[in-house]
Amino acid sequence: MKVSQALLSVSDKRGVVDLARALHDLGVILLSTGGTAALLREADLPVTDVSDHTGFPEMLDGRVKTLHPKVHGGILARRDLPAHMDTIAEHDISRIDLVVVNLYPFQATVAKPGCTLEDAIENIDIGGPAMVRAAAKNHGTEAGGVGIVTDPDDYSAIVDELKAGDGALSYRTRFALAAKAYTHTARYDSAIANYLTALGPDGTQEAFPDRLQLAFDKVQDLRYGENPHQGAAFYREPTAAEGTIARYRQLQGKELSYNNIADADAAWECVKAFDGPACVIVKHANPCGVALGTDAAEAYVKAFQTDPTSAFGGIIAFNCEVDRATAEGVSKQFMEVLIAPSFAPDALELLAAKKNVRVLQCPLGRAAGALDFKRVGGGLLVQGADEAHIATADLRVVTQRAPDARELADLLFAQRVAKYVKSNAIVYCRDGMTVGVGAGQMSRVDSARIAAIKAGNAGLDIRGSVVASDAFFPFRDGLDVLAEAGATAVIQPGGSMRDAEVIAAADEHGVAMVLTGFRHFRH
Amino acid sequence: MKVSQALLSVSDKRGVVDLARALHDLGVILLSTGGTAALLREADLPVTDVSDHTGFPEMLDGRVKTLHPKVHGGILARRDLPAHMDTIAEHDISRIDLVVVNLYPFQATVAKPGCTLEDAIENIDIGGPAMVRAAAKNHGTEAGGVGIVTDPDDYSAIVDELKAGDGALSYRTRFALAAKAYTHTARYDSAIANYLTALGPDGTQEAFPDRLQLAFDKVQDLRYGENPHQGAAFYREPTAAEGTIARYRQLQGKELSYNNIADADAAWECVKAFDGPACVIVKHANPCGVALGTDAAEAYVKAFQTDPTSAFGGIIAFNCEVDRATAEGVSKQFMEVLIAPSFAPDALELLAAKKNVRVLQCPLGRAAGALDFKRVGGGLLVQGADEAHIATADLRVVTQRAPDARELADLLFAQRVAKYVKSNAIVYCRDGMTVGVGAGQMSRVDSARIAAIKAGNAGLDIRGSVVASDAFFPFRDGLDVLAEAGATAVIQPGGSMRDAEVIAAADEHGVAMVLTGFRHFRH
Repeated sequence: MKVSQALLSVSDKRGVVDLARALHDLGVILLSTGGTAALLREADLPVTDVSDHTGFPEMLDGRVKTLHPKVHGGILARRDLPAHMDTIAEHDISRIDLVVVNLYPFQATVAKPGCTLEDAIENIDIGGPAMVRAAAKNHGTEAGGVGIVTDPDDYSAIVDELKAGDGALSYRTRFALAAKAYTHTARYDSAIANYLTALGPDGTQEAFPDRLQLAFDKVQDLRYGENPHQGAAFYREPTAAEGTIARYRQLQGKELSYNNIADADAAWECVKAFDGPACVIVKHANPCGVALGTDAAEAYVKAFQTDPTSAFGGIIAFNCEVDRATAEGVSKQFMEVLIAPSFAPDALELLAAKKNVRVLQCPLGRAAGALDFKRVGGGLLVQGADEAHIATADLRVVTQRAPDARELADLLFAQRVAKYVKSNAIVYCRDGMTVGVGAGQMSRVDSARIAAIKAGNAGLDIRGSVVASDAFFPFRDGLDVLAEAGATAVIQPGGSMRDAEVIAAADEHGVAMVLTGFRHFRH
Repeated sequence: MKVSQALLSVSDKRGVVDLARALHDLGVILLSTGGTAALLREADLPVTDVSDHTGFPEMLDGRVKTLHPKVHGGILARRDLPAHMDTIAEHDISRIDLVVVNLYPFQATVAKPGCTLEDAIENIDIGGPAMVRAAAKNHGTEAGGVGIVTDPDDYSAIVDELKAGDGALSYRTRFALAAKAYTHTARYDSAIANYLTALGPDGTQEAFPDRLQLAFDKVQDLRYGENPHQGAAFYREPTAAEGTIARYRQLQGKELSYNNIADADAAWECVKAFDGPACVIVKHANPCGVALGTDAAEAYVKAFQTDPTSAFGGIIAFNCEVDRATAEGVSKQFMEVLIAPSFAPDALELLAAKKNVRVLQCPLGRAAGALDFKRVGGGLLVQGADEAHIATADLRVVTQRAPDARELADLLFAQRVAKYVKSNAIVYCRDGMTVGVGAGQMSRVDSARIAAIKAGNAGLDIRGSVVASDAFFPFRDGLDVLAEAGATAVIQPGGSMRDAEVIAAADEHGVAMVLTGFRHFRH
């Protein structure tokens, strides 16, 4: 069924004049409102105002324009039912076969500086969503129906199809447009609901609203999930910040897997925590090597030394450009993913020889105020991200001996690494590199033992190293293990009932200890 | 401003007659449509049909009823602007101050057996959401506005407030109702969008739609998140299945923390995997003791023995009733949470003495087809749950020696446990209990070593035990460690390039090995 009449009323005016002209050339009658109508008239296109079409004046400052049977009957009448077609003819209602409406993003309204609640409310569109929803409902059958266009990026494909299809849109296209349209209205209302719910009637912002709506766009289907028998896909928030893994750009290599993305995220978030050139190698969601260097190449060499066994098949992340020398370094090991903010052209040339290696580019940056989610059966735990950054001024020395400058630098480094290691985390570091990572244990003393054993396996001497613990020591046993392994300084949050006992143990061993006051569990 | 006229048009008719009667008694004029109008008339209430009110007939099989300026002008005119009040008076439009509309849940429509796409589309409500949205927009100011009621559970409070407030609703109430209303329409359209997007124009169901909308209701605010400096809340899916942690009922004890809920979920999902009486103790997201028993008390004693150090302060879960003897057993240790499908009255009596222990009751049951989420920066990894259950018939013996009956039973037990241990997981078991749990390591051989060390620390002899590995052995070294520790049989997925080398190693050691074909990574 040929499109006879179209209604255009858009907030995002990109491309609407070209679309209208193409429709006009195809013999389509144009209805429009307000700003859109003015724009089309300026372009010398013949346009009928909706209020002239309905015979009912636009009123209440535009609050009621299109909420009229002449509009909605023209949209909602079923093209395949003669009774419906007769009814609209009786009421002098003409078919509207194409509805081009998009809504001003509500999130953008309320994000504007100085936007008041009244502004926000006034910006809520009522007529637009009603037309979008009506047109989407009546996308129809093979016999005909309404096309609902909510995205300017779809205009050119629509015009092409109309031209090729003798002025008609296929059922397949109308169906796909309808699905997209309901997503548009769902997200619009979700944004309003989230805003009003979070605001509360007193205007006090609430971090965790009573009703939470989340929206994601699919980035890609994945071959499978954490395991081959689980289906999976990767989604991105519509507003995902630059600097997050969701904004990655793949420069080469095989398709990313579920575990690749999860591990790349862990490596990326960790490596971004450092200021100078740094390298992080992740395996099974845990950093198995983290180091600072004068440049990327040196940082890599040090990070690799921590645990060469685990680094095999790992994810390698840098917070600085990967140059040729660094690319040569990492190419000696088997890696799944390499991620960095940029790559020198000659580094990419060299990496191209390793066709399977997934090379990801991601600009540096942090998502402020992001929410963290943990899935549990039937529900979701939602929390603010762990954004506490510990600096020298935050530390409290509690032992007789204070850490010296070298120890202090390593303690701050170790503390940052420990934040990204699964709890219970114990991390031995020296000279800006991890020398033993104890991860994922159910008791702290086991993590302390494991880290020392792993250092031994890697042939690293941990005497003279410093240690970070992600949470306090419940007993002195963990501290004893660290001191006996040769650690000389420890950083930890403190706060145990037995802090005094733990500090006394440190003093016995001549270990310097500083407290941060911040725990960093990560499970 | 007193409510002068109300429009009622509901899908869920609970309580609507009582509400209408109360409104009538308050002198409110009643407008209504279709089934709601019929119901009110049966109750002898004076009702005007919307079509009589608008002077425009209901048409197109009810598709266009309320989409009329007389309805929407009456809802949308600003009560605080004399110009708006004058305009509607000129057009003979009377104010509609209360809108009572709820939408038939679209998810329920499409969940009905035999629901066709056509049925689903026909059930999409256009007029209802338009009124809900218009009324919510015009919730107004202190001077007056529209009340929008979308939830029958709110009727009695609305009536009480109208009676107490001389027929008017407060701004505070109208605002809260508006926020709830947009949630109602957002979720309605999300359900439609998810349905249409997943269906695709060919009617082929797609597991992971291009655009994903998720909705959650807050169960409770939490004191803090994974760490004290992170805010947090716990949310539930509106359709959360019975048997999930989201449906817990707290019988006693302190407020649940973020980590309590996460760990209780891990323990609960694991313990539900077993058929006979079983007990799981979780610490830091990992099972640190799992056992079967002839009854709950015995299962607990065995589970505790695995790792008494880690069990301290753990989460304890049972898949069967906790009786008095079991309550006595668990009461000897410090625990954070106790969870089971039921508790004997005398067990609860005893537990009441431990006021701080959080006792949770949760019916048994599984959420079929649930999706798992993993948060990454700016996005979400979505996968089907790991629902593979391995039985004897799925196993392939690959060594010269096949496991004997006792070994086989323990292998299947160990395999089930390993599914719930963080990767890389190596689990030693004997006689239906874990005797060493190696969790969360970046290399498999480390997990194998750690599990053996932990068994030694707990004073457990692992000679004669069996072992489950959550993924294949990349090299024979892991297998060598297990055999040298005294394990006699191993269960693992297989699939390594070096399977032959690993199997040969098993044969050398006289170890029986079975392959499942299913990997169970869990990070």
